[in-house]
Amino acid sequence: MNFIRKIVKSIAKEDEDFYNELKKLLNFSPKKIDIYKKAFTHRSLKLIDKEGNPVNYERLEFLGDAMLGSIIASYLYKKVPNGTEGYLTQMRSKIVSREHLNELGKDLNLIKFVKSNIAKENIGDNIYGNIFESLVGAIYLDKGYNYCKKFIYEKVISPYVDIAKLEGKITSYKGLIIEWCQKQKKQYLFDTYEDSGNENIKHFSVKISIDGVMVAKGRATSKKKAEEQASKRVYFALQKEITNS
Amino acid sequence: MNFIRKIVKSIAKEDEDFYNELKKLLNFSPKKIDIYKKAFTHRSLKLIDKEGNPVNYERLEFLGDAMLGSIIASYLYKKVPNGTEGYLTQMRSKIVSREHLNELGKDLNLIKFVKSNIAKENIGDNIYGNIFESLVGAIYLDKGYNYCKKFIYEKVISPYVDIAKLEGKITSYKGLIIEWCQKQKKQYLFDTYEDSGNENIKHFSVKISIDGVMVAKGRATSKKKAEEQASKRVYFALQKEITNS
Repeated sequence: MNFIRKIVKSIAKEDEDFYNELKKLLNFSPKKIDIYKKAFTHRSLKLIDKEGNPVNYERLEFLGDAMLGSIIASYLYKKVPNGTEGYLTQMRSKIVSREHLNELGKDLNLIKFVKSNIAKENIGDNIYGNIFESLVGAIYLDKGYNYCKKFIYEKVISPYVDIAKLEGKITSYKGLIIEWCQKQKKQYLFDTYEDSGNENIKHFSVKISIDGVMVAKGRATSKKKAEEQASKRVYFALQKEITNS
Repeated sequence: MNFIRKIVKSIAKEDEDFYNELKKLLNFSPKKIDIYKKAFTHRSLKLIDKEGNPVNYERLEFLGDAMLGSIIASYLYKKVPNGTEGYLTQMRSKIVSREHLNELGKDLNLIKFVKSNIAKENIGDNIYGNIFESLVGAIYLDKGYNYCKKFIYEKVISPYVDIAKLEGKITSYKGLIIEWCQKQKKQYLFDTYEDSGNENIKHFSVKISIDGVMVAKGRATSKKKAEEQASKRVYFALQKEITNS
């Protein structure tokens, strides 16, 4: 195989890998792959398109931020029918806070898609939230509002958004589960261990068992987060028993 | 006809009028009429629904604001392919400014739908923009994102949004038209007159003729606005000739 053919083949392989990983992340088949590539391109690459416009994720970030804001707004509107305008505004700010979006971007391990001329660890923590937003913008351009909404429900709302916790009514699900087990004289076990697999960022897994039965699992970028996630799942699994106790 | 039947008939007539006027405004058939009624209900009426939640436009305003923001964002993203994130953010702020939305609400004469316990003229100028937003929120809940988008294109973007003007490149279309006519030695006439019809708020109409031929009309709540609107139409009608001169 000559040199050019080797390069062409390796590009095709890279594209195929990108497509497959993206599809797994999105839970649908992306169409306009170039938009997703743009969503992960850092401006340090100084790419421009044939019209002379810069190709990087910054404009998509603007678009994704707006889409995210409207989808979270409509979720909150329906979810909290007695929330005032001020309450809804405040809850939305918490959900789309830079800190929260950075966490999300990290948990989804979006950084592995990023193309940059600067070492990724030197770009700063906001890159995680920024590329989460640019990905949302890309989904909107590729597939429209409803796919965008579905993605945000699957990746943001369902695993992360918890009105009671955001309101400060529940500060720790782990604490709540432990307290409940102690009251009910149940044995509980948090089996927490490092589980990074072949990812760049450390991950932890946890299995929570109650009276010797595994009730829920969690996995995240810190022990604390993994345990909270799993505890929240235990909470929802046993909600009836817990709230009636 | 007895008393009760008279009342029932008069309520039915009011509902029918509301539906018909709303349909004219929206350019489509609204389905969930109660949502639109809510969009025009001021909190001074102190209405609550059967779940005990307040019925007024404030929550819908939150929702509509978010929808408007995302629709304007996607419009700007596509319209200005070389605009940076900062530029897009700034342009959007101008378009959705309180001042701009109040103007819009006034021009659409939305105030006629408002139900309030306070005299409408005492609610303050922001009511105009607020109910414009709550109407957008109601459209979203009734018919979904695409109807919302269509409404905003028809009522906001197409008649009001003008990138060149927002950028400050064109400060007055009237000035531009007059200057061009003078250079080209053309006769121009702005025929401006009060034209409120049976509306509560004063309206003005204008017809602009060039060399004795009527080129465009405008109608708005002030002479200046009507003239700008009509001048802008002249500009777009004669754009080729004007920009080539």
